[in-house]
Amino acid sequence: SKHYKVAVLAGDGIGPEVMAEAIKVLNVVAEKFQFSLSLTEALVGGAAIDATGEPLPAATLALCKNSDAILFGSVGGPKWTGLAPDSQPERGSLLPLRKTFDLFCNMRPGQIYPAFAELSPLHPRVSSLGMDVLCIRELTGGIYFGEKGRTAVDAFDIQRYSVPEIERIARVAFEAAGKRSKKVTSIDKANVLQTSILWRETVERVAKEFPDITLEHMYIDNAAMQLIRSPQQFDVMLCDNLFGDILSDEIAAIAGSLGLLPSASLNGSGFGLYEPAGGSAPDIAGKGIANPIAQILSVALMLRYSFAEEAAAQAIEKAVQSCLEQHIVTRDINPKSTYGTAAVGAAIVATL
Amino acid sequence: SKHYKVAVLAGDGIGPEVMAEAIKVLNVVAEKFQFSLSLTEALVGGAAIDATGEPLPAATLALCKNSDAILFGSVGGPKWTGLAPDSQPERGSLLPLRKTFDLFCNMRPGQIYPAFAELSPLHPRVSSLGMDVLCIRELTGGIYFGEKGRTAVDAFDIQRYSVPEIERIARVAFEAAGKRSKKVTSIDKANVLQTSILWRETVERVAKEFPDITLEHMYIDNAAMQLIRSPQQFDVMLCDNLFGDILSDEIAAIAGSLGLLPSASLNGSGFGLYEPAGGSAPDIAGKGIANPIAQILSVALMLRYSFAEEAAAQAIEKAVQSCLEQHIVTRDINPKSTYGTAAVGAAIVATL
Ligand SMILES: CC(C)[C@H](C(=O)O)[C@@H](O)C(=O)O
Ligand SMILES: CC(C)[C@H](C(=O)O)[C@@H](O)C(=O)O
Repeated sequence: SKHYKVAVLAGDGIGPEVMAEAIKVLNVVAEKFQFSLSLTEALVGGAAIDATGEPLPAATLALCKNSDAILFGSVGGPKWTGLAPDSQPERGSLLPLRKTFDLFCNMRPGQIYPAFAELSPLHPRVSSLGMDVLCIRELTGGIYFGEKGRTAVDAFDIQRYSVPEIERIARVAFEAAGKRSKKVTSIDKANVLQTSILWRETVERVAKEFPDITLEHMYIDNAAMQLIRSPQQFDVMLCDNLFGDILSDEIAAIAGSLGLLPSASLNGSGFGLYEPAGGSAPDIAGKGIANPIAQILSVALMLRYSFAEEAAAQAIEKAVQSCLEQHIVTRDINPKSTYGTAAVGAAIVATL
Repeated sequence: SKHYKVAVLAGDGIGPEVMAEAIKVLNVVAEKFQFSLSLTEALVGGAAIDATGEPLPAATLALCKNSDAILFGSVGGPKWTGLAPDSQPERGSLLPLRKTFDLFCNMRPGQIYPAFAELSPLHPRVSSLGMDVLCIRELTGGIYFGEKGRTAVDAFDIQRYSVPEIERIARVAFEAAGKRSKKVTSIDKANVLQTSILWRETVERVAKEFPDITLEHMYIDNAAMQLIRSPQQFDVMLCDNLFGDILSDEIAAIAGSLGLLPSASLNGSGFGLYEPAGGSAPDIAGKGIANPIAQILSVALMLRYSFAEEAAAQAIEKAVQSCLEQHIVTRDINPKSTYGTAAVGAAIVATL
C-alpha cells in the first residue's frame, strides 16, 4: 500500500502550533484515503540556530533528502534579525532548500472569497468583483542565485536566465492555466532588461504549444498597479524570481487573509516544499490564536502535487471551505471570533 | 530680471492637450511673480519617431542642453509598441535623458486626499486613514544601466551600485523627510542582494548626519504588502531604481488618481525633468477630457526645484487645491463631472 515519508520542519513562531493542527488533519486523511505516513520532525530556522548554530543543519537536510516531501512551517523572529544575511533563519534555510532540491516552481494562489471580501483591504467596488490568481514564480534562478560580490566602494548582483530555465516554468504556468481560466499574464521589464526580453520571447514560443491559452505580457510596474485597480483581470501570473517575490506578497496583501494562503515549491519530479504564505508571526506565537488554515491547505497541496492524492487534497479543501462558511475561524479572519488554533483544527478534522 | 529657458516636450497621446493648459498656468504665474520665460517646443517619443525616426532626436537633446529645465508631457501609444525596446518612445527618450543630464533623483509624491478618499481603490477603513508618501527613487543606476547582454541561450543584466551613488540619493531622502514627517523607510532586499546590503549600510551611515530623522528598513516584498495594508505608516520611501519603479506605480494606484500626480527627476545642480506620473492615455487622447492637473503640478515642481520660485509653486498648488475643493475636476476624478481639460485649466488660471 502507498506510503509517504514527510519531513516536518515546523520552525519558529507560530510554526509549531499550526503544524500540530496540520499533522492531525494529515493523519485523518491518511486513514480515510488509505495511505500510510512516516512523519519525521527536524529543526530549521531560528530554532535550529539556537540548537546547532545553523539555520539548516546537516541532519535536517539529510532527512529532507530521505523524504518524499517537506512540510514547512515558518521561520524567523526578532531574536535572529541581527545575524548576517546568509545566517538568518529565512534566507539560510529556504534558499539552500530551494537550490538543493531544484524547487524551481513556486505556486501561490491568492483569492478574494466572495463571502470574505471584507477581509480584503480593497474597496468593495473592487473586491466585490473577486480575485482568483495563481502566481507562478521561478524560484531557483535570476538575481537570487546569480554571481554577486562587493568591494569597499561598490557591490553587484547578476541576474541571469537561460532558455531552458524559462521554458520549464512557462510550461507549468500554461498547464496550470489550462485547468483554470485559460489565461497567462507574463510579467517582465522587457523595456529595460535583456533577461526580460529573453523571458518574453521564450514565453511566446512556449505559448505556441498551448493554443487554447491566452497569453498577455505586462510590465512589472504596471502589474503592481493593475493588481490593485482590477485584480479580477488576472488568472495565472508568470513571474521571474524577484518579480514573483514582490507580486506574490502584493497578491497576499490584496487577498487580505495571509492566514488562509498556502504555497507549494516544486521540482520536476514531484518533490516539493509546502508552506504557508505568511510568516512566523512572533507577536502572536504561543497564544493559541494563530490561524492553522494556511498550514492545513499546504498539506492539501502536498497531497495533490507530491503524492497525487487528489481526492484527499480535495477533502481537506472542502472541509476548510465548510469551516469558513460556518465562520469557524480565528480572529485574524473575524476579530470577534473566539475560536483558537486548536478549535479550528478540530473543526476541520471533525468535518473530515 | 529672472529669466528661465524651458524645453517643452509634449509628446504623444494626451501630452499636447494637458501641456497646453500647463503652459497657460506657467505664463500666468510668470507675470504674477515677475520672471520671464522662453518656452521652446520640441519633438519627443512617438511623434518624434514619426517625424525623424528617433524617439529623442539630436535637435531635441540640443534644446534640452540649452535649457534650464525640461517640461515633459507623456510618450508612447499602440502605434509604436512593435518597435525594438531601445527604439520605443518611453524607453528611447526617458532613459537617455536621465543619463545625459544625470537625473539621479526621482521624486513622486502620492497622496490620498481625505476629501477624495473615495478615489482610492482601498477600502474606506484603510483610505480614511490617509496616505502622504514621497517616493524617492534612484534613477541613473542599478540594473537599468548596468552591463547587459545575451546569447541565443541566455541573457544577463548586472545591477551595480557604488557608495557615492547611494549616498547622494539617501541625502535627498533625509533632507526631504526633514521638511515632512521626519521618517525615511529605505527599501531593499538585503536578505538576498549584495547591492542591497551595501545600500542598507550606506543609508545607515548617511542617517547619522540626520539625527532628527527616523530611519527604518523594509524588504521590497514586505513594502509591496504594507503599502496596501497600511499606507499611512509611510512618509519618505527611499528606493533603488528598480524597486522605485515598482513601488511608485503601486503608490499611484493606491492614490487612485494618476491624473493628479506629478513627478520630478533632478540632478545635483538644479536641472530637472518634470512630468505627470500617468501615461499618454491614447484611449482618451484628443477628446478634451484628460486631466491637466498632474501636468500643472509638474510645473509647480519645476518652479520649486529648478527655479527656486517657491511662492509661484505654492500659488499653483493652492489654485489646484481650490479647484479640487470646488469639484472642478475632469471625469477621471468624478465620473459625473462635465468639466473638460480646458475648463479645469481655465479654472486654475482664474483662481490664480
Ligand atoms: C526569505 C526570503 C529569502 C524569501 C524570498 O525572497 O524568496 C521570502 O521572501 C519568500 O518569498 O519566500
Ligand atoms: C519607460 C520606462 C523605461 C520607465 C522606467 O521603468 O523607468 C517608466 O516605467 C518610468 O517609471 O518612468
